[in-house]
Amino acid sequence: MLTRIDHVGIACRDLTERISFYEATFGVTVASREVNQEQGVREAMLHVADGPAGSSYIQLLEPLAPNTPVGRFIARRGEGMHHVGYGVPDLSQALAALGAAGVPLIDKRPRHGSMGAAVAFLHPSGMGGVLTELVQAPAR
Amino acid sequence: MLTRIDHVGIACRDLTERISFYEATFGVTVASREVNQEQGVREAMLHVADGPAGSSYIQLLEPLAPNTPVGRFIARRGEGMHHVGYGVPDLSQALAALGAAGVPLIDKRPRHGSMGAAVAFLHPSGMGGVLTELVQAPAR
Repeated sequence: MLTRIDHVGIACRDLTERISFYEATFGVTVASREVNQEQGVREAMLHVADGPAGSSYIQLLEPLAPNTPVGRFIARRGEGMHHVGYGVPDLSQALAALGAAGVPLIDKRPRHGSMGAAVAFLHPSGMGGVLTELVQAPAR
Repeated sequence: MLTRIDHVGIACRDLTERISFYEATFGVTVASREVNQEQGVREAMLHVADGPAGSSYIQLLEPLAPNTPVGRFIARRGEGMHHVGYGVPDLSQALAALGAAGVPLIDKRPRHGSMGAAVAFLHPSGMGGVLTELVQAPAR
């Protein structure tokens, strides 16, 4: 079902500062920078590598307000790793299979993710504490 | 400097149970299962994808005892994402560059990681709360 590690999602307080740090430290570059109102974040995708099934990114997430999922995450646990996103070839099919297997889904249907992707989150309570995102990249 | 997301490291209480869950849920397969006494873990690498610079894995980590880094992590934060590992072509060179740039290193020299790789950890205090591992895969 999984075609790649699409990204690791990292919560930070200051997106611009954190982007500069990653650029300077690892030489990665910004592939996309956008605001996702639905998820309550200002975010950037830093390109790490290309692979046969798509690219891999470091996703930096700054909350738009304290009372957002990422804002509450930082208040509770501090800055750091927030979730992992795996590529899948067909997100609707994957959600149907996981739902049938009893995996608790945060999103029963795909929603809008970074860079035009369709995404859905699986609940950490069913994933050993890991907030897990599935990502179907847009058709090229 | 980074060639791929090598793995996401996930802390769990019961390795065998967690492997079974990932196999059944995502259809991933165990590439390696080993004990790392130095790091105090029993671990498995679940293969996700192959890429031009190497493969990507989900790394599951079960502490060998409560008084180990992963054991203390679980006691403090519960099961979940523990670290991220990025591939680098030359680990010694990467550590020299990062050390010179003032990034706080947990390991000043490479040590033994999963599947024969050389690895080194960067301190989360200098990485925005993210325990970050660099991985140089063994020569093929």
